[in-house]
Amino acid sequence: MTYCVAMLLDTGMVFLSDSRTAAGVDQISTFRKTTVFERPGDRVMVLQSAGNLAITQAVTSALRESLESGDTQPNLFNCRNMFEAAQCVGEGLRAAWRRDADALKQFAVEFNASLILGGQIRGEAPRLFSIYSAGNFIEATAETSYFQIGESKYGKPIIDRVVRRSSSLNEAAKAALVSMDSTIRSNLSVGLPLDLVMVKRDHLQVARHVSIDEDNAYFASIRRRWSEALREVFAQLPEPDWLRSPAPAAQREESRTASG
Amino acid sequence: MTYCVAMLLDTGMVFLSDSRTAAGVDQISTFRKTTVFERPGDRVMVLQSAGNLAITQAVTSALRESLESGDTQPNLFNCRNMFEAAQCVGEGLRAAWRRDADALKQFAVEFNASLILGGQIRGEAPRLFSIYSAGNFIEATAETSYFQIGESKYGKPIIDRVVRRSSSLNEAAKAALVSMDSTIRSNLSVGLPLDLVMVKRDHLQVARHVSIDEDNAYFASIRRRWSEALREVFAQLPEPDWLRSPAPAAQREESRTASG
Repeated sequence: MTYCVAMLLDTGMVFLSDSRTAAGVDQISTFRKTTVFERPGDRVMVLQSAGNLAITQAVTSALRESLESGDTQPNLFNCRNMFEAAQCVGEGLRAAWRRDADALKQFAVEFNASLILGGQIRGEAPRLFSIYSAGNFIEATAETSYFQIGESKYGKPIIDRVVRRSSSLNEAAKAALVSMDSTIRSNLSVGLPLDLVMVKRDHLQVARHVSIDEDNAYFASIRRRWSEALREVFAQLPEPDWLRSPAPAAQREESRTASG
Repeated sequence: MTYCVAMLLDTGMVFLSDSRTAAGVDQISTFRKTTVFERPGDRVMVLQSAGNLAITQAVTSALRESLESGDTQPNLFNCRNMFEAAQCVGEGLRAAWRRDADALKQFAVEFNASLILGGQIRGEAPRLFSIYSAGNFIEATAETSYFQIGESKYGKPIIDRVVRRSSSLNEAAKAALVSMDSTIRSNLSVGLPLDLVMVKRDHLQVARHVSIDEDNAYFASIRRRWSEALREVFAQLPEPDWLRSPAPAAQREESRTASG
């Protein structure tokens, strides 16, 4: 399993992914799920992947090779806007499907891959896309500040509570890391190291790409402080007094109770 | 969708369920998912259900009818321990499967039902079971303080952080409600009113059964305070300084970057 989250903010973008790949509990490995495509001053794109690793690696590999092929097919470096870039990725998925889907079917393996592509090409605002196995995709609009792929549910509530388009890059990175922490605690198949990429709007290059492992002092500190603070806040919430006051008869009858 | 959580503590048990049933976005109704089976002084059991409502209602209904049938089949009031009670529920699911599974298959409807049964019979400690569609089940052991069914992921991290076997009934009820709040915020198909049942160890009857809707002052207050406190705690966490310090070259190279 994988957890990736990408955030689109007024001031740029933040991407965070884990690196654990599990093909059964006794076959756990580390694979990076973030790839950066960058031509500083002209364009910067970040691709995150979840799902079948053989498929997503094939797609990423083909996208990288197409940059150097010299042919006239659209690729991530010659496309004119991010919508075309998302189409390139979608086409990459469809090519993998045409090549592999029949063989996978013989082994009852689902063709399962989802990707997030975000970035900025000179002349456009930053844009963010979520690309499905079928190669179709959706784009984040003004109401959408983030996309997630993979094991997304454990880490969603905190993002919903704190991230807005107006959040700073640092706030968003912090939220992404807290969200990842909740996910790692709940799902063994999501694990360190993490890839964090921060992109400033209109800088057209990666502002920072950090690899975060157990030794990362900042991540260790916010994990510990968040955990302590949550427990404190929880302890400070008032407790219900339902056990002290007797239940009114009407309330008891609302429920379906079988008494003998 | 549904979210139910049941907690087994040193001092008793806490059960919380929502009441939303969605059969498509334009067919949303309120159905209680908690049923209490109680013979005060002798036994108390709480059954929670998730999955196909027609199946779980059929099972619950058959379990209630069997109490009054007067035949010698094991039922929830004549069984000798909670393990047998869980077997009764499992058998109920299997009877529903024998009756309905073929017909459901014709309509490509999955036979999907999961149940939680918790309670105490005089002479035993309180016990908690999670019962699967096939009628088989697992029991909470000393390391397990809770089971969830339905839409469980959004609300899992907070329970993992704060609930232990040694938590009080009030703390557990509070944790269940915070967990439900996170779930309701993230999944439209989980909704009010909630059913909260608290059972004190060795009291062999329900201590309190509360129906919680929008007007419940306690739930409204902890939702608001939790949300405010989370945002505050989050704001107080230090921000990363990765954008200030330049990235060391070595760190950049760790990632797979395609540059043009």
